[in-house]
Amino acid sequence: MTRAATAAASTEEVARLAGVGIATVFRHFPTKANLLTAVLARRFDRLRARAEELFEAADPGPAFVGFFTEVVADAATKIAIGEALLDAGGDEEGEAEQAANGLRRAIGALLRRAQEAGAIRSDVELPEVYALLVGTSRAAAHKHLDDEVRNRMLEVVFDGLAPR
Amino acid sequence: MTRAATAAASTEEVARLAGVGIATVFRHFPTKANLLTAVLARRFDRLRARAEELFEAADPGPAFVGFFTEVVADAATKIAIGEALLDAGGDEEGEAEQAANGLRRAIGALLRRAQEAGAIRSDVELPEVYALLVGTSRAAAHKHLDDEVRNRMLEVVFDGLAPR
Repeated sequence: MTRAATAAASTEEVARLAGVGIATVFRHFPTKANLLTAVLARRFDRLRARAEELFEAADPGPAFVGFFTEVVADAATKIAIGEALLDAGGDEEGEAEQAANGLRRAIGALLRRAQEAGAIRSDVELPEVYALLVGTSRAAAHKHLDDEVRNRMLEVVFDGLAPR
Repeated sequence: MTRAATAAASTEEVARLAGVGIATVFRHFPTKANLLTAVLARRFDRLRARAEELFEAADPGPAFVGFFTEVVADAATKIAIGEALLDAGGDEEGEAEQAANGLRRAIGALLRRAQEAGAIRSDVELPEVYALLVGTSRAAAHKHLDDEVRNRMLEVVFDGLAPR
């Protein structure tokens, strides 16, 4: 989706993405920015909940790699909503940013577990791993990278994260 | 720079970036999109010329890694100009896209030389390497990643690209 197309998304479409009715939308979200913030925060919260489920995974290495792959595969919609929100005036109350920070912390916990299990090299830290997640997500969303190239890109990153 | 700030950049600022006077700008570029396209194409052309100089480098491994690092370090401005161009109506004649394709081809040639020299694993291809370049560039530009984190992010990618 181009930015122009996203910015022009109707409130009806946004309501559908949020899983609520249009009347509810107008009652609860006085501005488009309020609405888009709620949609984005909900997506981040769902991903965080999914990451937290994986804290108890029997094999933390594949759990981390699988979750990273899942986030990147889902990135295009999230980035499009984020850009529409920026165009609509931004996340004034910081609600989406808070939800994104919760996701980041959960990813940090998955990373530590994978490092403790010896599946990810011990000398990497969350800031660069999160930057790789943001970067590969944005690359995948940019010009709709096809699945095969996206997977080959991720393999290079996972090889770079593997113990030497 | 936020997107709003970029989109609001004055023609004077753009003229300064392009290295030309304001009178020349209004004479040669009837629309803001024309002007931004020329600025962006010029940046891609310069990077391509720099890559082509490196074709004859004595050591193709460090030449490839150094150029990749240089492109990522310079990414924030390029991405901001690209977003302002999108907001101004886009690259209608495809001039910036052509220049970007020229840069991509030059990077492909640097990659092949580095692979022939045994410095980069032989089983990676340009699409995923270019996706990694786009991704790490966007991650670096996003929220102004600090230099140390950017370098640690790139080290993971270069380790992933090293022969196994």
